[in-house]
Amino acid sequence: MLKVTQQPDVISFGGGLPAPELFPTSEIAESTARVMERVGPAALQYSVTEGIPEMRSWVAQRLSSRFNRTIAPEEVLVVNGSQQGLDLLGKVFIDPGDHIVLENPSYLGAIQAFDAYEARYLTVDTDEHGMLADSLERVLDRADPFPKFLYLIPNFQNPTGRTLAAQRREQIVRICERYDLPIIEDDPYVELRFEGDVLAPLSSYAKRGGVIYLGTGSKVVAPGLRVAWLVIPDEETREKVVLAKQGADLHSGTITQYVFHDYASTPAFEEHIRQIVHTYRRRRDVMHDALREYAPASVEFNRPQGGMFLWARVPGLDTTQLLRVCTRERVVFVPGESFYPARDVRDGMRLNFSNASEERIRTGIQRLAKAIAEA
Amino acid sequence: MLKVTQQPDVISFGGGLPAPELFPTSEIAESTARVMERVGPAALQYSVTEGIPEMRSWVAQRLSSRFNRTIAPEEVLVVNGSQQGLDLLGKVFIDPGDHIVLENPSYLGAIQAFDAYEARYLTVDTDEHGMLADSLERVLDRADPFPKFLYLIPNFQNPTGRTLAAQRREQIVRICERYDLPIIEDDPYVELRFEGDVLAPLSSYAKRGGVIYLGTGSKVVAPGLRVAWLVIPDEETREKVVLAKQGADLHSGTITQYVFHDYASTPAFEEHIRQIVHTYRRRRDVMHDALREYAPASVEFNRPQGGMFLWARVPGLDTTQLLRVCTRERVVFVPGESFYPARDVRDGMRLNFSNASEERIRTGIQRLAKAIAEA
Repeated sequence: MLKVTQQPDVISFGGGLPAPELFPTSEIAESTARVMERVGPAALQYSVTEGIPEMRSWVAQRLSSRFNRTIAPEEVLVVNGSQQGLDLLGKVFIDPGDHIVLENPSYLGAIQAFDAYEARYLTVDTDEHGMLADSLERVLDRADPFPKFLYLIPNFQNPTGRTLAAQRREQIVRICERYDLPIIEDDPYVELRFEGDVLAPLSSYAKRGGVIYLGTGSKVVAPGLRVAWLVIPDEETREKVVLAKQGADLHSGTITQYVFHDYASTPAFEEHIRQIVHTYRRRRDVMHDALREYAPASVEFNRPQGGMFLWARVPGLDTTQLLRVCTRERVVFVPGESFYPARDVRDGMRLNFSNASEERIRTGIQRLAKAIAEA
Repeated sequence: MLKVTQQPDVISFGGGLPAPELFPTSEIAESTARVMERVGPAALQYSVTEGIPEMRSWVAQRLSSRFNRTIAPEEVLVVNGSQQGLDLLGKVFIDPGDHIVLENPSYLGAIQAFDAYEARYLTVDTDEHGMLADSLERVLDRADPFPKFLYLIPNFQNPTGRTLAAQRREQIVRICERYDLPIIEDDPYVELRFEGDVLAPLSSYAKRGGVIYLGTGSKVVAPGLRVAWLVIPDEETREKVVLAKQGADLHSGTITQYVFHDYASTPAFEEHIRQIVHTYRRRRDVMHDALREYAPASVEFNRPQGGMFLWARVPGLDTTQLLRVCTRERVVFVPGESFYPARDVRDGMRLNFSNASEERIRTGIQRLAKAIAEA
């Protein structure tokens, strides 16, 4: 599949890649020069497992207003991309056979990270506004053995692009507090909101330290830096994660943390996010409009308020089969099946709109529509 | 201890840090500018789990002459520092309770990585020339359950600075081949040879693909880049490690791989290694001479042919106790105890000579000698 995707005539809606033409390449070179000048050798030396103090303070400050409380820099840990955050949390929380709770469908990378620790999954039903609180309550009420944590993506979810409704956020936090179930709130797309109000994260509703928050620089600067962060209010959990990271890779890249911090402290950073949001919003519109124009009437699809993915369903069609037809038509996507832990829903597809130009999105959707009509 | 070490009047022989004043800071800034110009956005994008092709080819080429065979780039995997290599190998090979074989004493970071997977340890005796082949044979002959692999550092070992003798290398490979026991050859210090002949790695004696090799850029360029590599000849093992890394952090930093590769392709790189070797050799000499001049006659110490550590023993003294006296005298080291899995040898100490100036090394050894005399 990867080989097909790399052929230039194939239009890919399959990956989850940011638009590379927006990457701040010259600014990253400038930041590196400044860091080498200002910080010097310390930026190339071993550094502490928790992350450089500048990064931890930056994250704490940036998130404090959203969390509606003052986050201490000590609560923040820097990791090599969110994937490492998920892996470390899996290592700390999951013993073989342990149950964890996921949205249905849920992020494939998280499932893969937890699979490595031999987790088993309980799934909670969702609708256009995310996880259903009463379904969660039913799942927890019946759960035996009791799960280790709940994992979810509240904003512009991967794969569905859906956003968890404001009132459900507090409900879900209260339910989990009642059951003493930790929540892992994975929030990579929060800065990519195209319209509508920014919603308070689940972390802001937590009365005790029961919500662990994951954020990343991959979507707002560049994934190739591998700079992401965890906010873990509970000290005991935090110490376990630090120990796990120490064994896993000692620490995240020192220079990349300094460079990220330097760049994120310039006015160009906020301007850059506005540029990304502007570009992705247009691409979302182009994809949505093209689906309305070209897709058979039976195809259902949404119009996410942000992020990188649109979710479509082709009732009665197995999208894994459809992908074969699409490959002949030179367009690819990710079939929905792999996002369902039980692999029991086969008509979904995840369509990425961040990585292709508007023109290629239109052409790709035309090809996709043709393939659906054929299949 | 870390807090004590960070006080400027404390002389530390405790860490394993390269000399930061030698880091090529301006060259790294220049390489970054070149990479941003030449490679552009691809250097900031997600990249493949195995590592960028340029790095894999570079490692394959650099090691082929030492390995005495042509290494294929496909055998090479890029990781976030050797520590991640050890962690991934632990993840792939070790189930809770599994036995693995170590030199006695052995590298603490490896023990910590394997501890996370609940390994148990069989230890092989060593002398000034490294692991004793007949001791290894005895250990393997008696082993029940049979161990999963043998881990060792052949050159300028951490903590002892010892180098495994040439003739023992082939012996050990043959013994392990006979028992079908994989070897993990961790070789971070190979480029830091001050004198004597370069010895062929164990990998060069392997008839089948039974030796996994770890190398790193941390000692020859800078640890803060987190660029290291594995050579895994066996395809099945390699695929497992790739899967483990995919779940652990998707891939290593894209930009840092490109920057490392760019810098390592300039003539400045070889010159830089010569400079490091020159500086560390002098520091080794200063430490060795100062020990001869100031240490009580009972203290035994070696004169490693390379690397970053000298090993000393103070017969009859518990060096963990000695460290307390030393802290008052404003000098620190790592007590040997923690390098012995059974924690049954208490008179050793690891003395790092790469990170302090010649003057501070002399002063530090004087203080250490005073503390030994007191204790």
